[in-house]
Amino acid sequence: MKGKVFLVGAGPGDPELLTVKALRLLRCADVVLHDDLVSPEVLELIPAPAEVLRVGKRCGKKWVTQEEIHALMIGYAREGRTVVRLKGGDPAIFGRTGEEIEALREAAVDFEMVPGVTAASAAAAAAGIPLTDRRHASAVLLTTGHRSSVHVADDAGPQAQPFKTTVAVYMPGQDLRRVREELVQKGFDPSTPCLLVSQAASPRAAIHACTLGALEQSPPLSSPRLLIAGAVAASGQPAAAREEAGHETLPEENDVSLSVIA
Amino acid sequence: MKGKVFLVGAGPGDPELLTVKALRLLRCADVVLHDDLVSPEVLELIPAPAEVLRVGKRCGKKWVTQEEIHALMIGYAREGRTVVRLKGGDPAIFGRTGEEIEALREAAVDFEMVPGVTAASAAAAAAGIPLTDRRHASAVLLTTGHRSSVHVADDAGPQAQPFKTTVAVYMPGQDLRRVREELVQKGFDPSTPCLLVSQAASPRAAIHACTLGALEQSPPLSSPRLLIAGAVAASGQPAAAREEAGHETLPEENDVSLSVIA
Repeated sequence: MKGKVFLVGAGPGDPELLTVKALRLLRCADVVLHDDLVSPEVLELIPAPAEVLRVGKRCGKKWVTQEEIHALMIGYAREGRTVVRLKGGDPAIFGRTGEEIEALREAAVDFEMVPGVTAASAAAAAAGIPLTDRRHASAVLLTTGHRSSVHVADDAGPQAQPFKTTVAVYMPGQDLRRVREELVQKGFDPSTPCLLVSQAASPRAAIHACTLGALEQSPPLSSPRLLIAGAVAASGQPAAAREEAGHETLPEENDVSLSVIA
Repeated sequence: MKGKVFLVGAGPGDPELLTVKALRLLRCADVVLHDDLVSPEVLELIPAPAEVLRVGKRCGKKWVTQEEIHALMIGYAREGRTVVRLKGGDPAIFGRTGEEIEALREAAVDFEMVPGVTAASAAAAAAGIPLTDRRHASAVLLTTGHRSSVHVADDAGPQAQPFKTTVAVYMPGQDLRRVREELVQKGFDPSTPCLLVSQAASPRAAIHACTLGALEQSPPLSSPRLLIAGAVAASGQPAAAREEAGHETLPEENDVSLSVIA
């Protein structure tokens, strides 16, 4: 039997946000190579006979190098095994999937990508906001603040109308001052509404609402975190406002807490 | 019993790309209000007792107005029913979800968003490319070309370095000349690699590779379509190249056809 590598999105953490296909593949995989961002709840779904290897990198501390990941995928596939390369969120977005695809193509190993729910979608759902809105935001830019550099820098000049685009910063890092400075420098007003969403699709989810100018006064929410900046973030209502409106504060399964800096 | 509205992402079309949660909700919904973009294969999964209403808009021809959709959701929820508002892709991205959330909040109707796999992720997976790549593309802009207007216009000036950002144009429309003109006007080189992906997650999937300059010579692929422009699109290999490299052209379940304009 010919081996195959499936580059699979594990979604944002909640096992219920796995796709049906991802769940099926996890149940029949011979080997699962997973990142740190894949939640323990998802890993628990992998049946006992499968080999499960953690190949994540945390804060630049490499457990396994990118080249070793390539060698593992290719080696197992050549043994005829079904390999699931499991990544947090969607494999096409911030996952070094480009390099893994190249290695698999060069090695002539059969592969398939299985898309997943990306973190920005999960964060928006947790906050009860859209990422685009025909009235306020005609586009959404998915970027990363990992290593303290917001790459929106290349794309939004001072002439830009930032309120027309929502910016979702994946892994904004602990130094939010850098993120704030870069967005302001590129034309975003300090009054731009922001939501900092921590562990969006887990029982530990927390959401902090503030303005871009007050971003670095955010409480130290735990990783993974995602920042949503733009007019759409204003409608992510804090707990009090939701209760006034007669809503339950929390989606039933998620202990989502909202706080606001005045 | 209190009714509730679930704003649910149906993903890109393949029922296997529904989340586990979306599938569970479809199986227990009293009422499903769905868009045109939701695939027949997904709708088939809804059990017979549920009321299924199509509330889509196709090419500006309104079957049901946005206000009528709001009234339906609110009315059914007030009757104590479990309402699934089912949208193609992810509800936070290009789905008028912002307006529906506002209506539900104003009516004090309990709601929850369930994120889904967005079309750009599915298109990238079908083409076997990432949307970001630390070597070529540090961000991805999700925008829309519906009504022949690419909204990247507001955000990428001539000073932009477009190769650093991938642009995914949802619903680029039939007039690709407009899309090409707007992207070129905003600083994208006509040599920018493009992939036009039709019905990404279905047995009818088709992918056309070309440059931005040759975009309007694309074959008339059927809707829904998504355009990926940027350096990452170059690695979406045409069928011939994949076969040479010893790969199967097609992922097993998808009849993905690739073509190239020389």
